[in-house]
Amino acid sequence: MPRLKLTIAYTGARYAGWQIQSFTTRPGPPTIQGELEKAVERLLGRHVRILGAGRTDAGVHAEGQTAHMDIAAPAPDIHWLRAFRALLPPDIAVLAVEKAPDSFHARHSAVAKQYTYGIWKTRDYVPPRLAAYVWDHAGLDEARMEEAAAFLVGSHDFASFQNAGADGKNGTVRTVHAIQRQQVNGLHTLWHFHGNGFLKQMVRNMMGLLVYAGLGKIAPADVADMLAARSRTALPSPTAPARGLTLARVIYPG
Amino acid sequence: MPRLKLTIAYTGARYAGWQIQSFTTRPGPPTIQGELEKAVERLLGRHVRILGAGRTDAGVHAEGQTAHMDIAAPAPDIHWLRAFRALLPPDIAVLAVEKAPDSFHARHSAVAKQYTYGIWKTRDYVPPRLAAYVWDHAGLDEARMEEAAAFLVGSHDFASFQNAGADGKNGTVRTVHAIQRQQVNGLHTLWHFHGNGFLKQMVRNMMGLLVYAGLGKIAPADVADMLAARSRTALPSPTAPARGLTLARVIYPG
Repeated sequence: MPRLKLTIAYTGARYAGWQIQSFTTRPGPPTIQGELEKAVERLLGRHVRILGAGRTDAGVHAEGQTAHMDIAAPAPDIHWLRAFRALLPPDIAVLAVEKAPDSFHARHSAVAKQYTYGIWKTRDYVPPRLAAYVWDHAGLDEARMEEAAAFLVGSHDFASFQNAGADGKNGTVRTVHAIQRQQVNGLHTLWHFHGNGFLKQMVRNMMGLLVYAGLGKIAPADVADMLAARSRTALPSPTAPARGLTLARVIYPG
Repeated sequence: MPRLKLTIAYTGARYAGWQIQSFTTRPGPPTIQGELEKAVERLLGRHVRILGAGRTDAGVHAEGQTAHMDIAAPAPDIHWLRAFRALLPPDIAVLAVEKAPDSFHARHSAVAKQYTYGIWKTRDYVPPRLAAYVWDHAGLDEARMEEAAAFLVGSHDFASFQNAGADGKNGTVRTVHAIQRQQVNGLHTLWHFHGNGFLKQMVRNMMGLLVYAGLGKIAPADVADMLAARSRTALPSPTAPARGLTLARVIYPG
């Protein structure tokens, strides 16, 4: 059974997230995983499970989600990219299909991930083409946000940054390699989060807290105490909206 | 009655075009003009007519549509940009509100317009964030498209490029100042159309014909005969899809 690695981009606005909602009997809202599995089933005439690296939330986007699936040998001679293009809705695209070793697992083999969060910085208008991709938040002191971000970088117990509903496997210690600010223009900032893994809604909780730092509602040094408290209730800030978040890249060894 | 000039951006995917559909008694699908007038009515408590420079079709976008409206004096002290931002859906944004002389008319005062048409050039995937803004068309010879475009530049009777349903006022002679190709990257081309005015669906008909030239279905020099025929039936090509088209800018004297 050759294993294939997929690289996938999508805009999450219409979807209930990556993962198929399997806990109801009625058909749920569409999911990215569900649309991909449906496309492969139409192509091959049978159901194939597709496992993703990151279970992105409803409304979250991806530029480089990865997944794997096993296709019975002999592999049919399919032009996968064109087949996916023909079968998927325009807000989901498979960017690459590559052979992978049997030992490859989209989630377990990943050694790092990169997320990007978009902030739009004026009280006036948000360009309509960007509205689904940014959190519009005026009045931010970005130097203070960077100071606060520095307290999050490193290996920490991030229990305070995890929302309810996480599966609890693998503990709550993670390493954030870097949080970088990229100025797209004077009104638009992208915040890049690199880490070896992220807990449920951890990036959105970090972003929410950084915005509180930018508004002066917390001091950057408060972040250390909030981490040490190891409880979501220690964070005064809301979870940042899903629409600003994009899973940019999943990184594997080599 | 002070006259105000509005500059407006929108993504057209959800709308039946710019213009309010006034010929039915039931509420029709939403329009850009309708959403703007509704916002102003909520703000001022009475209906104000908003007249646009270009009646963009369903699915067509704008980065610089313009419009005008008259507000009874004394003008209330409104922060118009924030008010529009609060009252409009995220796919419509008012970029600027300026006082204009009483003689200003968004449509009649316009001396030129610029439209942009996006083409995505591969059979493989279209990036999901771009899917609503490009016509995906592989196998185009762009040098031939430019040769064909050169026959459209200048003052011509463009009756062959006008679809049925036009109002017939102002004749069918227009001046195309320039058609310029901009390579965004190896997969994405923007075609810019500058002219003193465009007939109903004229840009989309020009783009459809240029694509036929790019596919080798017509010779560039055939364009001259098609113009001379002064009939839409002389064009062998389909009208290009609305989603690729953006009204980029409306130009006024001075």
